[in-house]
Amino acid sequence: MKILVQKFGGTSVANLECMRKVLLKVRQGLDNGYKVVCVLSARAGETNRLLALASEWSQTPDPAESDVLVSTGEQVSIALFSMLLKDAGIRARSLLGWQIPIITDATSGSARIHEINGDKLKKLLEENDVLVVAGFQGMTEDGRITTLGRGGSDTSAVALAAALDSCECEIFTDVNGVYTTDPNICSSARKIDKISYDEMLEMASQGAKVLHIRSVEFAKKYKVPVHVRSTFSDDPGTLVTQEDSTMEALLVSGIAFDKDQARVTLHGLPDVPGIAAAIFGPLSEAGILVDMIVQNTSQDGHTDMTFTVSRKDLKKTLDLMEDVARKTGATEVAHDVNVAKISAIGVGMRNHSGVAARAFSTLNREGINILMISTSEIKITVLIEEKYLELAVRILHDTFGLDWDIN
Amino acid sequence: MKILVQKFGGTSVANLECMRKVLLKVRQGLDNGYKVVCVLSARAGETNRLLALASEWSQTPDPAESDVLVSTGEQVSIALFSMLLKDAGIRARSLLGWQIPIITDATSGSARIHEINGDKLKKLLEENDVLVVAGFQGMTEDGRITTLGRGGSDTSAVALAAALDSCECEIFTDVNGVYTTDPNICSSARKIDKISYDEMLEMASQGAKVLHIRSVEFAKKYKVPVHVRSTFSDDPGTLVTQEDSTMEALLVSGIAFDKDQARVTLHGLPDVPGIAAAIFGPLSEAGILVDMIVQNTSQDGHTDMTFTVSRKDLKKTLDLMEDVARKTGATEVAHDVNVAKISAIGVGMRNHSGVAARAFSTLNREGINILMISTSEIKITVLIEEKYLELAVRILHDTFGLDWDIN
Repeated sequence: MKILVQKFGGTSVANLECMRKVLLKVRQGLDNGYKVVCVLSARAGETNRLLALASEWSQTPDPAESDVLVSTGEQVSIALFSMLLKDAGIRARSLLGWQIPIITDATSGSARIHEINGDKLKKLLEENDVLVVAGFQGMTEDGRITTLGRGGSDTSAVALAAALDSCECEIFTDVNGVYTTDPNICSSARKIDKISYDEMLEMASQGAKVLHIRSVEFAKKYKVPVHVRSTFSDDPGTLVTQEDSTMEALLVSGIAFDKDQARVTLHGLPDVPGIAAAIFGPLSEAGILVDMIVQNTSQDGHTDMTFTVSRKDLKKTLDLMEDVARKTGATEVAHDVNVAKISAIGVGMRNHSGVAARAFSTLNREGINILMISTSEIKITVLIEEKYLELAVRILHDTFGLDWDIN
Repeated sequence: MKILVQKFGGTSVANLECMRKVLLKVRQGLDNGYKVVCVLSARAGETNRLLALASEWSQTPDPAESDVLVSTGEQVSIALFSMLLKDAGIRARSLLGWQIPIITDATSGSARIHEINGDKLKKLLEENDVLVVAGFQGMTEDGRITTLGRGGSDTSAVALAAALDSCECEIFTDVNGVYTTDPNICSSARKIDKISYDEMLEMASQGAKVLHIRSVEFAKKYKVPVHVRSTFSDDPGTLVTQEDSTMEALLVSGIAFDKDQARVTLHGLPDVPGIAAAIFGPLSEAGILVDMIVQNTSQDGHTDMTFTVSRKDLKKTLDLMEDVARKTGATEVAHDVNVAKISAIGVGMRNHSGVAARAFSTLNREGINILMISTSEIKITVLIEEKYLELAVRILHDTFGLDWDIN
């Protein structure tokens, strides 16, 4: 039995007209001899509508009950789409998370998948040509509904593909695939035909927003090739898969960026053991994600610590840091929101030195000051002034040859 | 453990303000030392919204998928209300039909309850003070979602009370209880304090519309006393319970009526064996419910057959009867929609003759012609011209002493 998992996001199932396009994609799968497992998100706007309802009812809605509430969004999608399939004479049925079941841990709102009963799915695929599965949701061992967090339907799809072994996975969305950078900023941005899991992980976390990051982790772990495509075109899209030699030929695969950055600096910190814990402990307890971190070399037994957080967390961060400053004797807490993060990503960097230097000198040539630097094996990230972001994206895109299609 | 089942309908959970009133009722239960099983319907308008969505998607929506769709209505209600309870510091959780489970047959859209796991509920009541259960829904043995049909939440509540043995059941609605007749038509209509299951069955099927008829059948079968009350007042309401001597003292307990009637007559039917089957077989196959039936005495080997159906079924009925007339040689198919049905109901009739005669003479005195008659042990029903309905309700209500409170 050849099985294809196809996932369609909220904009793809927003209304009847969109769902008819989804039906065409499912039919293509069937015509190619596949049995199809079709994973759907809630219709566009539905999850937000339900969350708004929850906030009307409670200032701090119970997380477990929130999951019961928002999981109805996908339930509506799968019921409606199954009706369409049945009307088209296709043997199909809907499946909720608990009906498979997709077993998760009990972390309401961002549960992790533990286990999926692939045998039951295969049995159901003998009686049906299409199974329409609710994305984004699962069930705990003791039968409570959980949700996987925003974008979790991507993870559902990849996990289902993994549970069905050697099954292919297509993620349909409203874009044609993954681009070398944002085409709205850089007109010479190109669609990437093939990208490695690691590169995609860096792209996604940097804001490429095409695939949910946890779904890519899942795909990498279970070696599931993921095909990102558009519901509204026949473009072949981008294949996210294991690293191979064609990818390594390229120094840099893409330029990602993120404007949602705020920089915080503690000046005049005493350079004593435990100072980092004193700063980042309270942030972690408050659930604030810290992104880049730089500590200056100590002078006269004092040092500066600079880090970035999401702008929505800035106020809370400053409150916590004022408290840390009092306790540690730091002289000042400074901050800046007019900053942006830009990254060059590529598995090719692993075997080539000089990529960072080339990025820095390119930025320098245009007079763009680098505020912070962070590097990993396959990524170089710099923090710059926000006003230079678009320019920086274009010149880095150009400098690393992303304008030419050499894939 | 003292357990109280409380059911709240769509208007009682329509919005946050209404749900706060529901919270007060639940609190009263808790304050009186009960653990509470709270059964909720979908918020007013929600089921219709979902059904409209289904009709947009399909002219004949798949019934099993319709159940998946509309069952989200109650899911939203129980999640939101559980949030309120949690915020009020009450130990509570929501429960969907499949989580209990409430096992039903596989008749999508009007499933019948087979079994409820009362032990699991009792165990959950040890950890919680309130269980918020989705009404109207269940699950088949093999794990598919079913719904119990319109008004099914009443049935859910009574069935849960039965599964929890010797548990009390309160059905909250937007009226104060069951009335001797419709107060909009007869200003002297009174609330009934106590009514038997059988009387309530006749009242409900005649359009009293306070309790879903299947819930009353369930209550009768398992001897569950059902207390019908208003969410929006502290009125003691109406107790639906086993027949007792106080009820038998009353000849007639209530006057019910139904305007949704259309009369169909086949004239000149050959009076041969199988003629009734030839008429009512096709109607039954078409899912048309026939209410009253009268066959005239045969003359010259020919007879007339008259019956009533719901007005929405009239066109289909006439089409079928034209066909029957052709096949059987009946001379004419006549119909009349300006008719209405009126019934006097009371367990007291069992031991008293003359109730029917009194009803007929009362109607006759006012010049109201009786078109059809049907009687049972505890009910007399007549079909009259619709224009006389309000008058007939008032004079029968008066004639049987329902204006005076002698309960």
